[in-house]
Amino acid sequence: MKALTYFGPGKKDFIDKPKPKVDKATDALIRVSKTTICGTDLHILKGDVPAVTEGRILGHEGVGVVEEVGEGVKNFKKGDKVIISCVTSCGKCENCKRALYAHCEDGGWILGHLIDGTQAEYVRIPHADNSLYHIPDGADEEALVMLSDILPTGFEIGVLYGQVQPGQTVVIIGAGPVGMAALLTAQFYSPAEIIMVDLDDHRLEVAKKFGATKTVNSSDGKAVEKIMDLTDGKGVDVAMEVVGIPATFEICQQIIKPGGAIPVLGVHGEAVDFHLEKLWIKNIRLTTGLVSTSTTPMLLKTVQSNKLQPAKLITHRFTFDEMLKAYEVFENSAKTEALKLIISNE
Amino acid sequence: MKALTYFGPGKKDFIDKPKPKVDKATDALIRVSKTTICGTDLHILKGDVPAVTEGRILGHEGVGVVEEVGEGVKNFKKGDKVIISCVTSCGKCENCKRALYAHCEDGGWILGHLIDGTQAEYVRIPHADNSLYHIPDGADEEALVMLSDILPTGFEIGVLYGQVQPGQTVVIIGAGPVGMAALLTAQFYSPAEIIMVDLDDHRLEVAKKFGATKTVNSSDGKAVEKIMDLTDGKGVDVAMEVVGIPATFEICQQIIKPGGAIPVLGVHGEAVDFHLEKLWIKNIRLTTGLVSTSTTPMLLKTVQSNKLQPAKLITHRFTFDEMLKAYEVFENSAKTEALKLIISNE
Amino acid sequence: MKALTYFGPGKKDFIDKPKPKVDKATDALIRVSKTTICGTDLHILKGDVPAVTEGRILGHEGVGVVEEVGEGVKNFKKGDKVIISCVTSCGKCENCKRALYAHCEDGGWILGHLIDGTQAEYVRIPHADNSLYHIPDGADEEALVMLSDILPTGFEIGVLYGQVQPGQTVVIIGAGPVGMAALLTAQFYSPAEIIMVDLDDHRLEVAKKFGATKTVNSSDGKAVEKIMDLTDGKGVDVAMEVVGIPATFEICQQIIKPGGAIPVLGVHGEAVDFHLEKLWIKNIRLTTGLVSTSTTPMLLKTVQSNKLQPAKLITHRFTFDEMLKAYEVFENSAKTEALKLIISNE
Amino acid sequence: MKALTYFGPGKKDFIDKPKPKVDKATDALIRVSKTTICGTDLHILKGDVPAVTEGRILGHEGVGVVEEVGEGVKNFKKGDKVIISCVTSCGKCENCKRALYAHCEDGGWILGHLIDGTQAEYVRIPHADNSLYHIPDGADEEALVMLSDILPTGFEIGVLYGQVQPGQTVVIIGAGPVGMAALLTAQFYSPAEIIMVDLDDHRLEVAKKFGATKTVNSSDGKAVEKIMDLTDGKGVDVAMEVVGIPATFEICQQIIKPGGAIPVLGVHGEAVDFHLEKLWIKNIRLTTGLVSTSTTPMLLKTVQSNKLQPAKLITHRFTFDEMLKAYEVFENSAKTEALKLIISNE
Repeated sequence: MKALTYFGPGKKDFIDKPKPKVDKATDALIRVSKTTICGTDLHILKGDVPAVTEGRILGHEGVGVVEEVGEGVKNFKKGDKVIISCVTSCGKCENCKRALYAHCEDGGWILGHLIDGTQAEYVRIPHADNSLYHIPDGADEEALVMLSDILPTGFEIGVLYGQVQPGQTVVIIGAGPVGMAALLTAQFYSPAEIIMVDLDDHRLEVAKKFGATKTVNSSDGKAVEKIMDLTDGKGVDVAMEVVGIPATFEICQQIIKPGGAIPVLGVHGEAVDFHLEKLWIKNIRLTTGLVSTSTTPMLLKTVQSNKLQPAKLITHRFTFDEMLKAYEVFENSAKTEALKLIISNE
Repeated sequence: MKALTYFGPGKKDFIDKPKPKVDKATDALIRVSKTTICGTDLHILKGDVPAVTEGRILGHEGVGVVEEVGEGVKNFKKGDKVIISCVTSCGKCENCKRALYAHCEDGGWILGHLIDGTQAEYVRIPHADNSLYHIPDGADEEALVMLSDILPTGFEIGVLYGQVQPGQTVVIIGAGPVGMAALLTAQFYSPAEIIMVDLDDHRLEVAKKFGATKTVNSSDGKAVEKIMDLTDGKGVDVAMEVVGIPATFEICQQIIKPGGAIPVLGVHGEAVDFHLEKLWIKNIRLTTGLVSTSTTPMLLKTVQSNKLQPAKLITHRFTFDEMLKAYEVFENSAKTEALKLIISNE
Repeated sequence: MKALTYFGPGKKDFIDKPKPKVDKATDALIRVSKTTICGTDLHILKGDVPAVTEGRILGHEGVGVVEEVGEGVKNFKKGDKVIISCVTSCGKCENCKRALYAHCEDGGWILGHLIDGTQAEYVRIPHADNSLYHIPDGADEEALVMLSDILPTGFEIGVLYGQVQPGQTVVIIGAGPVGMAALLTAQFYSPAEIIMVDLDDHRLEVAKKFGATKTVNSSDGKAVEKIMDLTDGKGVDVAMEVVGIPATFEICQQIIKPGGAIPVLGVHGEAVDFHLEKLWIKNIRLTTGLVSTSTTPMLLKTVQSNKLQPAKLITHRFTFDEMLKAYEVFENSAKTEALKLIISNE
Repeated sequence: MKALTYFGPGKKDFIDKPKPKVDKATDALIRVSKTTICGTDLHILKGDVPAVTEGRILGHEGVGVVEEVGEGVKNFKKGDKVIISCVTSCGKCENCKRALYAHCEDGGWILGHLIDGTQAEYVRIPHADNSLYHIPDGADEEALVMLSDILPTGFEIGVLYGQVQPGQTVVIIGAGPVGMAALLTAQFYSPAEIIMVDLDDHRLEVAKKFGATKTVNSSDGKAVEKIMDLTDGKGVDVAMEVVGIPATFEICQQIIKPGGAIPVLGVHGEAVDFHLEKLWIKNIRLTTGLVSTSTTPMLLKTVQSNKLQPAKLITHRFTFDEMLKAYEVFENSAKTEALKLIISNE
């Protein structure tokens, strides 16, 4: 089969690899119908994630059809259409029992990282019963690729950890795919204002279409002043950091209200200055985290009832043969205006 | 009347000052029976709190007897014995309505800071109905001085924000008065282990008597290794920072479990390094805050039912005339082994 | 001034009454601009609420302009436009401090019940600082009359107590004004399905316009079967009882899922059969309650940001002179299709 | 092997039965070391639980040693000492994923009910990975039999659903084994008062030893008056119903404070009168439920740290040969003063 394969920093190819097999009783083998590329895949390609070894097939998102299941798999059978979760959950360890699948003792984020991933014709999914979800009849499969990772990430780590409530003022710093996912799912809780912050005017325009009530272009370095103006000097209830650099974390610290929340969704590569000399007295709550995808069933219901339209996030479509071209488009998203791509194997 | 008065960095005296009066309808005038000294008072004396102006009477803790009330005061009358809360609450603003009295728009921490405080024979208490609490008949008044500030601080900012639960492993870094208050009130929720960390062996011995299950002297710089050993390498569920310096915050970051909580109770004077490059993936929750004393009624019930014995925290007793000597003892707590003092006006 | 006055069961009149005055320092005198009639007023008129004595002015909803304030009132001044809360809160008692204003020791529901109410040209509001809310400039005052009682009631007692979550299936039994308020505010939390149940097809049509995804006319006695069919036999996550009779409570008990919630909003006049022999094992949560209006500020923000359109609930408008006619229309709501009326004093 | 077997209403015997086998890959076969008898077993014997068919081995509590595991079992191996949970959890269904194991779609309460139980030398445990718990080295195995059912039941359905908090006043009606389990675990949260109510003075004496602060013998029909007196007429914050009859539910309704909680733990056989005509306005929260045993790991930690001493509940000990005698003693608990028995197979 064909698979997007990592060969060390800066090197990847779309090559022939052996088709995976069911190894353990709890595995499922999935024929991938549609996959996509994540910002994390680009990080891996830069060499930022040393745990990824040469020869690894990338990708941790996708939908597909069950080709074969181990004898221990009860929830799925050959022919079932499924969403592949980016996080693998054994369902049996201490962390899985408290719904913290991100820290599953025999799973967590392993797909396209410690085991071969979804940017391939087939993928082996361990602990299938707890790591796959049924696609309802008649659902838009393309849209459901967004439920593998970015929508649960925006929702769990941004909206739920941030405890977004009706009537609040929410700022989201970073209008990339995860920021947009936070924007879409924050609206589940009817905040009064959602202010989107980014350097890119096009993304801010898109954010407005997705429900942002106000936008701030932060390229002039005046994001804090602008946000304080927009909130009559009061600051905000929830400030989501969705970029992953010290500068955006700094903004969050300056705009947060007493009693407010700073959920950090960004993947940070270095330590940040944390202004406890100002914040110790402000009764704030700061959270971090990797997604558990424990809310996938809830999100699926919101998609089915049209409270959430994940397809909005899809900007480009490719066939599997165009895998390398898809990477090129995604790597140049500033120019191509790409948010999420769909790469189809039909 | 006599009052401990601030005269700029390094200067204080116990001098005659005019007796305060009821100014507003919602004020009460309290004859102070017992007061104490807080670490914050020492910070003020060093000049660390520039908002405190020369001539200010210090002190934000104490119990007393109502001498006079404004006509708008309903809950109290002359002769009532009361606990004075360190935080003033108007009961009418947006923050008071959500029980965040720390950020009351016409109060918060003002006593011995922006208005004259409790280290005096008399003190004027604004918004008396929401800032004083009745002392039940027969209660140990000395013990209740601990409910003005440190017990609610340890409980609200440490235990409640940290969401201590039965069976958990809790670390408290800093065995001063507030750390001890956190230790006493954490036991309301029956954690399996409470590990106390400090540089001072005497304080650690006291902590054991107060319910710490294990202690770690961190003077060798090996607190992290020791705590990881004590927890079989797993880390802890809740790591309370109760010192207020970068080094102790650093320890908290290194010992926290995935899904754990870091409540910051320390008063920090400078920014800290926050290791988001390691913690972004760990699903932690970090909180900060000034006490609201919204739990004083709850704490009072636990004292009355003997679930909490605040008197344990009292190490030294003085008369009002000995005010300056009391300061000297408290300033030298490493040598005098002082935790909380009682200064009585009888 | 003119006022709708109760003269014992079945007897009311719109007569001249003395204009009220500021009695206490915490009172405000309000010139009522707009008021409305509540189902509770009809109960009083039937004699169902014996605490209401002859000569009492009815009404506990409305907006107006501050005419005068006592000297203890800080949040309001003459000329301010205000929403009058149906529940009076002193802000100082144990229940007010935990935001349970419904059980305020010097307030609660007293307007148009134990003291004179809002169906008059003027009304005296005790504890004004905690019982009135500012109307923002440019707001639709008519719409804000809905924030005096029914919107907070539907929201607090139905939606918050019921813990409505994204993706859930919610049933609301009773499409009167409070049921409609619950319907509008349940949508803050994006449930997948809201099934409205009533005997009246017109109300069900209106409910669809207000966001119900499905409706059930229960006049054939088959509500349970219909709801179970609509949910593939699974039952519902939240079943709100908003009628106040045994039959509707019975439906809730039969359709609730394991782990589900039954918030009771109806005003019940008799005991009901509670099927603990079936429900003891089902892990349900049942709640009751009078509104506290503690969420009025939050609701106001959702109105200002257009997440909530209370004006939808208004079906008829009258002048003050038409007070008795307004009552007639409201008493015959089955025929007149009245939900909420506005009675204006301009 | 020998097993206590049900032969229809009123008929049981301790007879030879075939030793069970591992049937499915997720099964474990356990050699039972210690078991006990539950009030539910007596209900079954009366014929109250028609789903139990003739020939069924009873019992859903116990500890033992793993004899054999299916190939799908990962957490346990031959020789491991385990606590057997009364509730079976597949770990894969919608309800298990939200920790509502009581309603597991392929489990729940099935042991000694729909499949053979633990009052036998061996028992087959389905879904072993999620239905057994490791016994730590050196633990008191006898004590841990209490973690199969009654301690998690008292804790989850009484204490957690009731949201017991420090300083509260809690009433527990029914001082049988589950009421005692609620009494022991309520103390995790340091309520100010725990008032135990029962008809039996001996049980009330025991309750005092277990931490009840006050006791009420309700045999004179004056429980309500007595409890109101004990609470200065205020009523209680939490009223646990742990008997399962209308009379005790009635008491709960009369003593509950506004804003209070009524957790129902009793197994009810008939509908009760629910006084919504009085309670609709009182903002109460009522819960029901079967235990999920999701808190067993937490409880185990409290036992290991000696915050909980389950052995207190054990009044009598028998060998396996004395199974029928043990039943006789348990059936006559009023006379024998039995709470929980241990029946050992050594």
